[in-house]
Amino acid sequence: MDPIMSRPDAAALVRTQMSRKGLTWTKVAEAVDAPLVWTTAALLGQHPMTAAQASAACEVLDLGDDVGESLQQQPSRSIDPTLLQDPTIYRFNEALAVYGPALKALIHEEFGDGIMSAINFQVDIARRAHPDGDRVVVTFDGKFLDYRW
Amino acid sequence: MDPIMSRPDAAALVRTQMSRKGLTWTKVAEAVDAPLVWTTAALLGQHPMTAAQASAACEVLDLGDDVGESLQQQPSRSIDPTLLQDPTIYRFNEALAVYGPALKALIHEEFGDGIMSAINFQVDIARRAHPDGDRVVVTFDGKFLDYRW
Amino acid sequence: MDPIMSRPDAAALVRTQMSRKGLTWTKVAEAVDAPLVWTTAALLGQHPMTAAQASAACEVLDLGDDVGESLQQQPSRSIDPTLLQDPTIYRFNEALAVYGPALKALIHEEFGDGIMSAINFQVDIARRAHPDGDRVVVTFDGKFLDYRW
Amino acid sequence: MDPIMSRPDAAALVRTQMSRKGLTWTKVAEAVDAPLVWTTAALLGQHPMTAAQASAACEVLDLGDDVGESLQQQPSRSIDPTLLQDPTIYRFNEALAVYGPALKALIHEEFGDGIMSAINFQVDIARRAHPDGDRVVVTFDGKFLDYRW
Amino acid sequence: MDPIMSRPDAAALVRTQMSRKGLTWTKVAEAVDAPLVWTTAALLGQHPMTAAQASAACEVLDLGDDVGESLQQQPSRSIDPTLLQDPTIYRFNEALAVYGPALKALIHEEFGDGIMSAINFQVDIARRAHPDGDRVVVTFDGKFLDYRW
Amino acid sequence: MDPIMSRPDAAALVRTQMSRKGLTWTKVAEAVDAPLVWTTAALLGQHPMTAAQASAACEVLDLGDDVGESLQQQPSRSIDPTLLQDPTIYRFNEALAVYGPALKALIHEEFGDGIMSAINFQVDIARRAHPDGDRVVVTFDGKFLDYRW
Amino acid sequence: MDPIMSRPDAAALVRTQMSRKGLTWTKVAEAVDAPLVWTTAALLGQHPMTAAQASAACEVLDLGDDVGESLQQQPSRSIDPTLLQDPTIYRFNEALAVYGPALKALIHEEFGDGIMSAINFQVDIARRAHPDGDRVVVTFDGKFLDYRW
Amino acid sequence: MDPIMSRPDAAALVRTQMSRKGLTWTKVAEAVDAPLVWTTAALLGQHPMTAAQASAACEVLDLGDDVGESLQQQPSRSIDPTLLQDPTIYRFNEALAVYGPALKALIHEEFGDGIMSAINFQVDIARRAHPDGDRVVVTFDGKFLDYRW
Amino acid sequence: MDPIMSRPDAAALVRTQMSRKGLTWTKVAEAVDAPLVWTTAALLGQHPMTAAQASAACEVLDLGDDVGESLQQQPSRSIDPTLLQDPTIYRFNEALAVYGPALKALIHEEFGDGIMSAINFQVDIARRAHPDGDRVVVTFDGKFLDYRW
Amino acid sequence: MDPIMSRPDAAALVRTQMSRKGLTWTKVAEAVDAPLVWTTAALLGQHPMTAAQASAACEVLDLGDDVGESLQQQPSRSIDPTLLQDPTIYRFNEALAVYGPALKALIHEEFGDGIMSAINFQVDIARRAHPDGDRVVVTFDGKFLDYRW
Repeated sequence: MDPIMSRPDAAALVRTQMSRKGLTWTKVAEAVDAPLVWTTAALLGQHPMTAAQASAACEVLDLGDDVGESLQQQPSRSIDPTLLQDPTIYRFNEALAVYGPALKALIHEEFGDGIMSAINFQVDIARRAHPDGDRVVVTFDGKFLDYRW
Repeated sequence: MDPIMSRPDAAALVRTQMSRKGLTWTKVAEAVDAPLVWTTAALLGQHPMTAAQASAACEVLDLGDDVGESLQQQPSRSIDPTLLQDPTIYRFNEALAVYGPALKALIHEEFGDGIMSAINFQVDIARRAHPDGDRVVVTFDGKFLDYRW
Repeated sequence: MDPIMSRPDAAALVRTQMSRKGLTWTKVAEAVDAPLVWTTAALLGQHPMTAAQASAACEVLDLGDDVGESLQQQPSRSIDPTLLQDPTIYRFNEALAVYGPALKALIHEEFGDGIMSAINFQVDIARRAHPDGDRVVVTFDGKFLDYRW
Repeated sequence: MDPIMSRPDAAALVRTQMSRKGLTWTKVAEAVDAPLVWTTAALLGQHPMTAAQASAACEVLDLGDDVGESLQQQPSRSIDPTLLQDPTIYRFNEALAVYGPALKALIHEEFGDGIMSAINFQVDIARRAHPDGDRVVVTFDGKFLDYRW
Repeated sequence: MDPIMSRPDAAALVRTQMSRKGLTWTKVAEAVDAPLVWTTAALLGQHPMTAAQASAACEVLDLGDDVGESLQQQPSRSIDPTLLQDPTIYRFNEALAVYGPALKALIHEEFGDGIMSAINFQVDIARRAHPDGDRVVVTFDGKFLDYRW
Repeated sequence: MDPIMSRPDAAALVRTQMSRKGLTWTKVAEAVDAPLVWTTAALLGQHPMTAAQASAACEVLDLGDDVGESLQQQPSRSIDPTLLQDPTIYRFNEALAVYGPALKALIHEEFGDGIMSAINFQVDIARRAHPDGDRVVVTFDGKFLDYRW
Repeated sequence: MDPIMSRPDAAALVRTQMSRKGLTWTKVAEAVDAPLVWTTAALLGQHPMTAAQASAACEVLDLGDDVGESLQQQPSRSIDPTLLQDPTIYRFNEALAVYGPALKALIHEEFGDGIMSAINFQVDIARRAHPDGDRVVVTFDGKFLDYRW
Repeated sequence: MDPIMSRPDAAALVRTQMSRKGLTWTKVAEAVDAPLVWTTAALLGQHPMTAAQASAACEVLDLGDDVGESLQQQPSRSIDPTLLQDPTIYRFNEALAVYGPALKALIHEEFGDGIMSAINFQVDIARRAHPDGDRVVVTFDGKFLDYRW
Repeated sequence: MDPIMSRPDAAALVRTQMSRKGLTWTKVAEAVDAPLVWTTAALLGQHPMTAAQASAACEVLDLGDDVGESLQQQPSRSIDPTLLQDPTIYRFNEALAVYGPALKALIHEEFGDGIMSAINFQVDIARRAHPDGDRVVVTFDGKFLDYRW
Repeated sequence: MDPIMSRPDAAALVRTQMSRKGLTWTKVAEAVDAPLVWTTAALLGQHPMTAAQASAACEVLDLGDDVGESLQQQPSRSIDPTLLQDPTIYRFNEALAVYGPALKALIHEEFGDGIMSAINFQVDIARRAHPDGDRVVVTFDGKFLDYRW
């Protein structure tokens, strides 16, 4: 008996079909009927999908039931440390090294002692036109949680 | 002869006066006449201030010229790794571990092969009212830079 | 000759059948007639099972003798460090970073110089209803061991 | 001008007076009128106290206003990695290495995809009498937070 | 269905054909009609190629469409840390450990607060004849980016 | 008896006088009569200076003999790892992560099995005007050393 | 041609047969006619066996010549760091963290400046009956080596 | 107010007086009336002493009450990782890397699934005469603890 | 198409034939007509061989052309960190931890500011008879390179 | 009471006087009447000196009794990892990364299973004249120790 396909193996097949069929994440997210960043993260292995979502994804991607089964599994949410070297990802971490303590200070000033939830949380990405070159705008939007005993 | 006060020592005195005088970062940023997150980061040691900015900051904080001299120095922008354990800062890094590969994929889809600049870059923080509890909204806004030889 | 199936390979097959047969850990623990957290940990590879426990587990999970043989092996109890990034697991470690020194001080105050055993030890998990949202209650219960020469 | 006393320096003075005056954490927590584990953690530098709490703590500990001022500051919540080697603290981390994946699986089974909050969270410690030797019982009690976009 | 060949697998086949056919990177770069260092890096897995570039590379290297498909994929740009031990690569990192702070100081003196871009960036390598032994000359040429809010 | 001033302490005083006297590294290098990058690195603690160089540096910087004595000492050439996070320095390391294996392949193709020396070595930095924004050009120039038994 | 079976692969087959044939390490050590801890370590991959020892081991374990050939190879003596997390192994390392500096001081006091050899060295393990519970007694016995130029 | 002297500072003074007064650990342990290895470890900062033990130690070492107060404090039991490089300490860790898995296997064979306690534990060191050179014999003696739910 | 056999795979086959044919490194080095340590290192994957050397090695080792092709490839010179734990290798690193700063001081005293090359470099190993036991004598012989701009 | 001066503090004063009095390690080793590398290592903090050696060293270096007392203390033999970055020291470690496995294989071939002792061990350094540039010759000479139970 073979175990359920792993989430990384499923993600590799998703990327394969994205490329071979010329699909965009936007189009797949529409097919799945879920937010763009959420869908992309889920297909790359970071969220479990419902059976309906997995089925819709596999249909648009022309992938089999073994992939669909995998996409519904609860993943371990983690990242291989070497991926953090990739410049497109690293810049976000650099920004947090520079601005993290300031964000902490300002969250405490505005909300009190607590955090921005990373669970009750959504991310969005947009293009902002600018005469000096268009800009990537990423918005982190999480519920404030106060330290409460 | 004593060397110029280090940026961390200056930041400790800034925090001391913030607390003793009951000031807010918002108020200090107004005095410095600079954006809120930028000013907070600069006073915590991550940006050099101009002479005028440093002077305005020291006036509202009632700090001496030795602090003002320090605030104008070019810092080394880095973060002590143990600070990354702080839950308020850690949640941002967790979000990037979960969504980083998805953001990379979507930047490439929308803009092509490149990155969001962390230099030509600004961060903003806001409170968004919500019936289930107010939310922290942090916006990263950086110029897209394409890999260009 | 093939070696005995590894504990991680057995765990992958356990998870596969849990999903395909729609079983719960609670139901499997009942079949194994052992505590819930213990059974889950054992099936995920952290405790050796007796022959009877392994047999009961394989029966309810519809798995073969090769899995049953594996489940009886003495495991190496360790965790891949990247799994500690998973937010559901990380929160426990964060809580220990925040409260660890306090727990140490209080154990010393109440019991004297020593530790809570992690071997003569049991863990339980429960749901506690709460008007603001139900709560996860995890109880660590270990024998006090005093430093004794 | 001297900066505000650091939280670790304040904690060292708290420990000094605990020892010299023969106080218990229980007694200090009563004086502060706050939960035992919370108070211990706060005095060791992991939570900001209110002015009233800091004042009550300093009175029972016979410590000065400089300590009281420090106890009200927002700390960076982190732990020196070498402290994690201490056996009394290490046993908790060992238990999580052994049972972490099982707890994750059981939280998902009972509550769905999400986490136990470490912010809306409380810890308690108790002694449980047992004929084979009394036991340390530590309870983690955190609000369940589901992944919600 | 097999996933797209990974970039490291494609690079291994590129190196294989370079050796078996006695090709030089210079010759392959000419066939691809792209700069030498860029082409080498791309074939080793650090840049996506256009369909035309991948096709030209596969033709000169006598490699199949599966390699060509792989060469067009967006890579994760990272390096296995053990490769940094290789003396030919390590010397560059050693030079940066010795001269990095000086380069930072001189960039700030000449350009102001900012960085040399590693994205809008090109590298060149040349041989410089010298009576004491020829020299390797590597030029990093990146756009200056100033910290701009 | 006090030991010789450490190189980092001397470097802090050098930076102090650079700032207070409004000097540039270029001007100090002229006074020392040595190459710009070499002089900057030496004053920041990475090379020993001759007595004459140290004396010239201290004269233009208005620093005492204790600094001059320190500047002549043989340093340990190393860098604090947290400094490598600084974006201005990090970009060089990122470029080497991306292009290091390509540079290795091209050195081997052009020169044979060996390395670019980091000892018989010089670095230069220049500004290159460009209509899209001026560029930082850093040249590494080291003698080729072949593996020779 | 296949390479010689690796020592870890041979160890996995040894463990397999230990389990399937219900053998004990004591019995295998008798068959090999070598000390108990040495034999166990050798079969787990940490010492080369003579041809006679390997042959005797394979006979009692009913393993083939390919395993016997592997057991005679010179191993690399090292341990995967994740195995050090296993509680049964970790306790030894914890004891050394607590008592290491004391053992060093006492070796120097009794023998002078030097070490206990880990090469001219033997380990033994025994059970010591005790009314409060039997005890594990592990003896390290190594030749003293003095620093001798 | 000064905090209680740290355990490392107390240990440095203990070592100072050991040297200046020509004392041996054996003699101090007799004065303290406690086992040799325990006393050495306690004076080096790894165990709290009773008031009587601390007083006896300070008398024989001619140290003040401030040291005696420190010796009674509960320490954090940990070791600076750089100390593990010391060859006299390292050899013990090397022996565990080589024999750790064998000891684990033999503990399980003799006692079942469990560990040797490092808390209900004692260490002894002895000299064993041998014609090829005397030997260091270190005995670890800890209660067996079985995994018991 | 299969890629060229990796250097580690080739090294495993070399070791296999060394064992099966009862060859010594000395004998193989003679066949290759190259220095002993160089040849051993090259066959273990650290140097490229010429076609003639690879052919001679494969003939004496009775290995195929696929191995010979591999031995001519330019390797990445690095070592898996876990191999550094092996006691036979570790002792060299320990010696450098103890004597490294002294060697640095003496190189600077005798030669001036510079290094011993590890590229224009040879290593030799010899047995030196000694009445107390024969000795391993390893000689590092590298060209002095002075820091020269 | 002040503790005995630390070995690093003593080494800093040794280096200070070496520089101020223009002494060489050779001359100091003669005064101490001990081998050159041993004396240098001892003065830099890696070996305890006898009273006579310490006295002779302090006389030639014109240092006080406090330094002499320190030089006689048993050190912890370790090295700060950042010092290993220094190129003069790093080259030795690089050579071991390249040749370590070969040296291990050749020690086993010539001597059998065992190690070169780093305790019964001496190091020497010499200059070897060579027409292409003089060479640094470092000899490691340690007693062979065979694995002996």
